[in-house]
Amino acid sequence: MPTLDICFSPELLPLFDLKGKVAVVVDVLRATSSIVTALASGVTHLVPFSELAECRAMAAQGYLTAAERDGRQAEGVDLGNSPFGYLDGVVPVQGRAVAITTTNGTRALHLSAAADGIVVGAFLNLGAVADYLRRLNKDVVVVCAGWKGHFCLEDTLFGGALAARLQADFDTTHSDATLAALDLWAAAAPNLAGYLLRSAHVRRLNHLEAHQDMAFCIREDEYNLVPVFRDGRIESLNH
Amino acid sequence: MPTLDICFSPELLPLFDLKGKVAVVVDVLRATSSIVTALASGVTHLVPFSELAECRAMAAQGYLTAAERDGRQAEGVDLGNSPFGYLDGVVPVQGRAVAITTTNGTRALHLSAAADGIVVGAFLNLGAVADYLRRLNKDVVVVCAGWKGHFCLEDTLFGGALAARLQADFDTTHSDATLAALDLWAAAAPNLAGYLLRSAHVRRLNHLEAHQDMAFCIREDEYNLVPVFRDGRIESLNH
Repeated sequence: MPTLDICFSPELLPLFDLKGKVAVVVDVLRATSSIVTALASGVTHLVPFSELAECRAMAAQGYLTAAERDGRQAEGVDLGNSPFGYLDGVVPVQGRAVAITTTNGTRALHLSAAADGIVVGAFLNLGAVADYLRRLNKDVVVVCAGWKGHFCLEDTLFGGALAARLQADFDTTHSDATLAALDLWAAAAPNLAGYLLRSAHVRRLNHLEAHQDMAFCIREDEYNLVPVFRDGRIESLNH
Repeated sequence: MPTLDICFSPELLPLFDLKGKVAVVVDVLRATSSIVTALASGVTHLVPFSELAECRAMAAQGYLTAAERDGRQAEGVDLGNSPFGYLDGVVPVQGRAVAITTTNGTRALHLSAAADGIVVGAFLNLGAVADYLRRLNKDVVVVCAGWKGHFCLEDTLFGGALAARLQADFDTTHSDATLAALDLWAAAAPNLAGYLLRSAHVRRLNHLEAHQDMAFCIREDEYNLVPVFRDGRIESLNH
């Protein structure tokens, strides 16, 4: 039976041997939720960058640009890091490619390069990711983007929710991180929004837009798609 | 109100600014439990070493030597890492000094050097540590020794138990790590032994001696003493 482990911070990734495994990168608030929403809204693919300047420069190649620093839209780009940017129609996104950079999510994607495959996970596509991992039948490491390297609740809870869906098919007992995430998920699931309103990260984003984003980002199974990161691009599997 | 944060692994310590704060180093299974037991059993002080050879060499200066590697007593030393080594009378410890090295605990002590003060915590002296921190009234970071850098349940649960005792006097809500540890403690406290028997680390130590050690190491408030690490030595406060 393959194993499911959880890495609580990109800073801990050097402890994990990703070779032969699938990395599921998650940044619930909000990078990976926005990536899933972008692809569901007709974006052809996304290219993640670490540096804002690199991201901005992609406009010259016809890319839409999306950038967030410390929770706010960066200057001189088309979109921020809110999933509603892909839904509200202000910037038409259908058929476009998007260059993105975010504080934590992009970093986690690039640091997972040693894995056999890299999947982008969020509550929005939880079931699709679970089904895909079940079919692959390989060891999984959930890579939590965290907050500037620190443990954060929402990404850990995604790990717990994924482990709960895969308990019959994966060994979720060999790792203390997975055991902890399962128990936190059990505590949070009955009222996930209420639970996350206690979180330090969510309180940092304590304004109306952030609360609307959070309410959307914790919806499970909104989209039936699996974004994969390969050759520098994120695109929907079977795209 | 001072803050109480929890660092889940020594690998994450570079993210924490320990200046002006008190570090509480914990390695429940078994280094810090053994240190507390040693001082309670009449050991005058302990000197922690990273390298086994350095530890062994202290025998020439009249020190008892205690060393563990991968959960077993190392060769050519007087004691392993079991607290019962200080209780069973096989090696008389009263009035002796002890040189120790362990896989995870010693490393966490040395990596906490930037803190204003370093305290050794365990369930065995939970109440004494809580009282001391309340008197100091400074920001606290609980440094979990973890297992070879990985998150581990038992040290996290100590962090949660300490946070629960200090909730009235410390801000335990500003850190997602502390919030998570409090919730895990709430889930585990009614049957801590049963809870830890699920843990990966505890199952790795799945033999009689380890289970006896675990049963002892999770007793709360067995000893009313606060070991502090300064000038290279661990000794009881007010010693």
